[in-house]
Amino acid sequence: MAGYPPGSGSGYGYGAPPPSAYPAPPAYGSPFAALVPSAFPPGTDPSLVSCFQLADQDGSGFIDDMELQRSLSSYNQTFSLRTIHLLMYLFTNTNTRKIGPKEFTSVFYSLQNWRGIFEKYDSDRSGKIDASELREALLSLGFSVSPVVLELLVSKYDKSSGMNKAIEYDNFIECCLTVKGLTEKFKEKDIAYSGSATFTYEAFMLIVLPFLVA
Amino acid sequence: MAGYPPGSGSGYGYGAPPPSAYPAPPAYGSPFAALVPSAFPPGTDPSLVSCFQLADQDGSGFIDDMELQRSLSSYNQTFSLRTIHLLMYLFTNTNTRKIGPKEFTSVFYSLQNWRGIFEKYDSDRSGKIDASELREALLSLGFSVSPVVLELLVSKYDKSSGMNKAIEYDNFIECCLTVKGLTEKFKEKDIAYSGSATFTYEAFMLIVLPFLVA
Repeated sequence: MAGYPPGSGSGYGYGAPPPSAYPAPPAYGSPFAALVPSAFPPGTDPSLVSCFQLADQDGSGFIDDMELQRSLSSYNQTFSLRTIHLLMYLFTNTNTRKIGPKEFTSVFYSLQNWRGIFEKYDSDRSGKIDASELREALLSLGFSVSPVVLELLVSKYDKSSGMNKAIEYDNFIECCLTVKGLTEKFKEKDIAYSGSATFTYEAFMLIVLPFLVA
Repeated sequence: MAGYPPGSGSGYGYGAPPPSAYPAPPAYGSPFAALVPSAFPPGTDPSLVSCFQLADQDGSGFIDDMELQRSLSSYNQTFSLRTIHLLMYLFTNTNTRKIGPKEFTSVFYSLQNWRGIFEKYDSDRSGKIDASELREALLSLGFSVSPVVLELLVSKYDKSSGMNKAIEYDNFIECCLTVKGLTEKFKEKDIAYSGSATFTYEAFMLIVLPFLVA
């Protein structure tokens, strides 16, 4: 099996992530840990605050999966509940399916960023990007994947049955979330940044299962 | 993080798999490796051979995902295409989405075995099993999961919205396939049977991605 340690001449392996506004993940523990209530970061666009407050009908400080789905669709970002669950998992690091102001803001600005990247690489405005454009898009997000991983991603996230493999916006987001999430989980275990990581069976199952069908 | 090496006093970690009729997985390589043509094992039920030959309309020696789905439903085993893809991946160890006589036979007899286990634990014939029954069912298949992993599995594979968490037959099969598949992939890397395994980033991605949404 070929290994591609970061910084090796092969050019594969994961790259350094771009500077990020995401909070550091909480210490590893039960995936059902409670969410800490949060506030909007200073300077958040007031319309985003209103949007969250409109969705948070009971004023609990949290919105659920259906509420997040509706909120994002009002910004023309339409996703399946599966993608919404993956977003909630990765931005809260829990399986509680509730999201507060701080995480909502991170989700919103990340999606804006990813939409910009998608549109940059979808130069013919077809609403789809192909394998080599996906590779470039992931690179610009700081993730460098090998040709075999790229082929697997395209075969997973191309939901059309056309001859020319291509990925639509919502599947692109799910693909980005998956690559980002799995890479971050791997790097948490690769403390020496060696390109290899050791997992107990328990940790392996707890890391992988949340990415499966939600 | 708690680790549960097999054989430790904690009672968790993966158990030895039951004696298995599955072929040994091919050497680790491209997930798009070609399938080797195969034959029915001696003594295969002739009605199973007929069923396969009926599905294999072009006589190629392979059937595809839709054909497998139709064949199994004629035995009252009805699955989503997602579950069918997971079955095909795990019984061929490739992503080609074609399956030959030998793998078809393994799929069929494994499903018969799993159905028997499901019915044994669904003692009230509700068509559903709960968390503690799932734990027993997985144990009888040779897989011992911790309470945290069990909770995660139930939250993933209970697709009802009821208050009482319970898993239906098709989701039970998907759950079994996932636990079996991930455990086997982990064990391939845990050569010393220590309960820990080391992965390169490339291997980690190639192992996990095929389990994601198909």
